[in-house]
Amino acid sequence: MAKALIQMALDSLDFDQTIALAEQVAPYVDILEIGTPCIKYNGLKLVKALKAAHPDKKILVDLKTMDAGEYEATPFFEAGGDITTVLGASDEATMKGVIKAANANNAEAQIDLIGVEDKSAVAKQAAANGAHIIGVHTGLDAQAAGQTPFEDLKTIAGLGLNVKVSVAGGINKDTIQSTVQAGADIVVVGAAIYGAPSPAESAKELRALVDAA
Amino acid sequence: MAKALIQMALDSLDFDQTIALAEQVAPYVDILEIGTPCIKYNGLKLVKALKAAHPDKKILVDLKTMDAGEYEATPFFEAGGDITTVLGASDEATMKGVIKAANANNAEAQIDLIGVEDKSAVAKQAAANGAHIIGVHTGLDAQAAGQTPFEDLKTIAGLGLNVKVSVAGGINKDTIQSTVQAGADIVVVGAAIYGAPSPAESAKELRALVDAA
Repeated sequence: MAKALIQMALDSLDFDQTIALAEQVAPYVDILEIGTPCIKYNGLKLVKALKAAHPDKKILVDLKTMDAGEYEATPFFEAGGDITTVLGASDEATMKGVIKAANANNAEAQIDLIGVEDKSAVAKQAAANGAHIIGVHTGLDAQAAGQTPFEDLKTIAGLGLNVKVSVAGGINKDTIQSTVQAGADIVVVGAAIYGAPSPAESAKELRALVDAA
Repeated sequence: MAKALIQMALDSLDFDQTIALAEQVAPYVDILEIGTPCIKYNGLKLVKALKAAHPDKKILVDLKTMDAGEYEATPFFEAGGDITTVLGASDEATMKGVIKAANANNAEAQIDLIGVEDKSAVAKQAAANGAHIIGVHTGLDAQAAGQTPFEDLKTIAGLGLNVKVSVAGGINKDTIQSTVQAGADIVVVGAAIYGAPSPAESAKELRALVDAA
């Protein structure tokens, strides 16, 4: 199994803060994620700026697309996005549209299972349709109510689908190794890094934990 | 019953084209909608520009929020948005967050039923939670597969909830009057206007049809 990748969720709204945080953590992470509120606030130019500053990193644009899949995702791939997300709660045609756009740009489509009732069914369908990554995701509002993504990870990883599995939802230094051991190909970290006194030190520590998992 | 409002969906990605189209149709519509791909592409500055150009119109920002409701919606209300949308497929806490942000800014939250399985249940819950508008919505990808919003409109309007009902999904001059008669408080028009030889003439015609319905 390839080593797990670390994805840094850039959840600030501020353009300059986002660029600055990416700069601090880039040495220790593999994927820089532009969070959903952040992309809506800043628009496409942030993708271009982040890719220009970090051509060696993958850029994930967390569009959480719900409709008009190909139309919405295409310009973000063209601007330098390597991965965009589409909601598993969307129409199958919408997911197929994002997958098509990804393939046309030598990029990847991630199906985000946030809010999906039957996660296994959607994951299987998405894999059959050629999705590249399945995202097991407990959102910020659900985290505030005490939920975690770990049970869902076991379920989805247990399906043995031919896709990468990404996990997001409050992962920190206490849970990151067990998350990798449970089958995550990509672990998403946000508050555990940007909420730390030193984001760079925190990212470095998490990198070591993942590489040792 | 108050006269139905017309909402113009600005679905282009281009900033200047969006501003120009709004200018053409503004005399005939009540709400200018920044479409989801358009807001992700352009960011918050488009809300400010559109509100500055049309202080007398309501601006709807079609965020289709799926998580972090209050955090994501707040800056868009502060920038001049009068309505933002949140997905009915999201966590109840997410919808409550957008409603809270709307109320804090003397604005409105619209629950978008796109992709929701049990639309009546979500509509009732949203109304009980203080949502201002319920959006009955057949997305572009579902429209391409031949679906329409008219049956769902009958169901939701028939619930008699104390909310406004907005309808979107390929409405044109042949269907706009029956949509109003079926209980729509807001009719959303996109391609029927921007796809017409003269968007202004088309908007004027639709205005007359709505006012006579």
